[in-house]
Amino acid sequence: MSGREDRDLLEADFPVLSVASTRWSDNDVYGHMNNAVHYQLFDSAINGWIASQAPDVVSAGDVIGVVAESGCTYYSELSFPDDVLVGLRVERLGRTSVTYELGLFARPQNSAQTEGRAIAAKGRWVHVYVDAQTRRPAPIQGQLRTLLESAQT
Amino acid sequence: MSGREDRDLLEADFPVLSVASTRWSDNDVYGHMNNAVHYQLFDSAINGWIASQAPDVVSAGDVIGVVAESGCTYYSELSFPDDVLVGLRVERLGRTSVTYELGLFARPQNSAQTEGRAIAAKGRWVHVYVDAQTRRPAPIQGQLRTLLESAQT
Amino acid sequence: MSGREDRDLLEADFPVLSVASTRWSDNDVYGHMNNAVHYQLFDSAINGWIASQAPDVVSAGDVIGVVAESGCTYYSELSFPDDVLVGLRVERLGRTSVTYELGLFARPQNSAQTEGRAIAAKGRWVHVYVDAQTRRPAPIQGQLRTLLESAQT
Amino acid sequence: MSGREDRDLLEADFPVLSVASTRWSDNDVYGHMNNAVHYQLFDSAINGWIASQAPDVVSAGDVIGVVAESGCTYYSELSFPDDVLVGLRVERLGRTSVTYELGLFARPQNSAQTEGRAIAAKGRWVHVYVDAQTRRPAPIQGQLRTLLESAQT
Repeated sequence: MSGREDRDLLEADFPVLSVASTRWSDNDVYGHMNNAVHYQLFDSAINGWIASQAPDVVSAGDVIGVVAESGCTYYSELSFPDDVLVGLRVERLGRTSVTYELGLFARPQNSAQTEGRAIAAKGRWVHVYVDAQTRRPAPIQGQLRTLLESAQT
Repeated sequence: MSGREDRDLLEADFPVLSVASTRWSDNDVYGHMNNAVHYQLFDSAINGWIASQAPDVVSAGDVIGVVAESGCTYYSELSFPDDVLVGLRVERLGRTSVTYELGLFARPQNSAQTEGRAIAAKGRWVHVYVDAQTRRPAPIQGQLRTLLESAQT
Repeated sequence: MSGREDRDLLEADFPVLSVASTRWSDNDVYGHMNNAVHYQLFDSAINGWIASQAPDVVSAGDVIGVVAESGCTYYSELSFPDDVLVGLRVERLGRTSVTYELGLFARPQNSAQTEGRAIAAKGRWVHVYVDAQTRRPAPIQGQLRTLLESAQT
Repeated sequence: MSGREDRDLLEADFPVLSVASTRWSDNDVYGHMNNAVHYQLFDSAINGWIASQAPDVVSAGDVIGVVAESGCTYYSELSFPDDVLVGLRVERLGRTSVTYELGLFARPQNSAQTEGRAIAAKGRWVHVYVDAQTRRPAPIQGQLRTLLESAQT
């Protein structure tokens, strides 16, 4: 999508949503969430979703996802103590790799507004699946592929 | 309390409770939450509680709480992707300082059990309030003192 | 540069170099440095360089750099307890923004080899300078512009 | 030691010394290093020392050190971009556990002064060694015990 369209993404554009709490230590000297924390939230949303929906994949452990690329565009500030809503969709599903698009939305704790907020940051994330022993690319199969397909839009 | 009693603390022993999510990056090479993350959760529980219940204190900003001491006893492992329930009570309230006792309890995401869990870690935290400019001790007053008194047990 | 060329970047391609220590907590369950730590190192290299070479800019504080975009391509693993050498160059210097290219190189503590290592990760970082009060874009001037120009290659 | 004596500890009181770099993300909204980072530095000093001096212990991996207790007293602020000197000594060596005392000292990057600084924070750390499989306490032996004995003062 173009930069303009990205900025207009809404929660409803993401098929998988989770809520993350923030931490006092996330805020930097300017009083907003440090830019590296966004990546901790992307990673946690992806891995938490897989752990809850495809637990067999995680426990088997013979194939692991390693990060090949990551990126983030920052539109507005997030900050502790607000919660953050993390949206996730599968942008591209290859034989051995998957590309996610992620969105972060502020979720103030004492606010009645629960949707329609502007996106605060947009992420991109590429996982390559490899054999845990040889570290060579391994095909995405079975329960994991089915799950990833379910988040394609 | 003695070590034995500390280990027997339950959620009900803490008058203030909040839930924190964990992050993939919290887990260390042994697969459990790194010991420093406990302190991030203690800090966030205290500051998040004050921010939501005594917002005037935070926005005024002429008096700030600085950490003089902290400590943690670890009883059992916590780990991503489980949520953590954080309990907090005021153990001692002085003229310019406050000592908190904190408890962390595992909160597995797909579990029906919601109470009666054993405490996973117990924290101790001393905040000294100081003038934001001079950094000299300043009395705990007004809305903040009332709030802290409410969490004494 | 193309992906192929990026992978061939050496320490000598970066005009500014600094060394960062790693932390036990940086390693994730697979025993290598968590992908978000790379961004902490990028940020620290940029801000540490400016703080040491253009201290007036930082102390004045009326103009601040906010991160508009960041990204990383991961080629090989980094891990505690190895040090990391961080290379930095200014890829593009605009009126109110600057784009950095960064490189991370493993620096094992007991190794005699001090150059010629392959790049472990390549970063991209866009800072937009804004007025600290209004948060509107502000021109990069004086000591800071001179410093940034010195790192263009 | 008493609180008064602790505050007077100098670098020379610690038989093992290492230098850690700080990160932009370590600084909190008050512009000093967040209190949880101290624990990341304690952990890294201990594990980095063991990894470099007793590598056989780490690679064998059948016995691992788990943190039973940790604590910190904060005397003065540390902050990015200063380096931190971390001092370590073994306070008590038991059959299956070891108690460390740690000291953090600011190490400003452009300062000629290299010793005699006041301690900024003092840590306490208890590692219990356990069998990696059964997680039951295991005796500290061989190369590791010899190393730990060398840091007793």
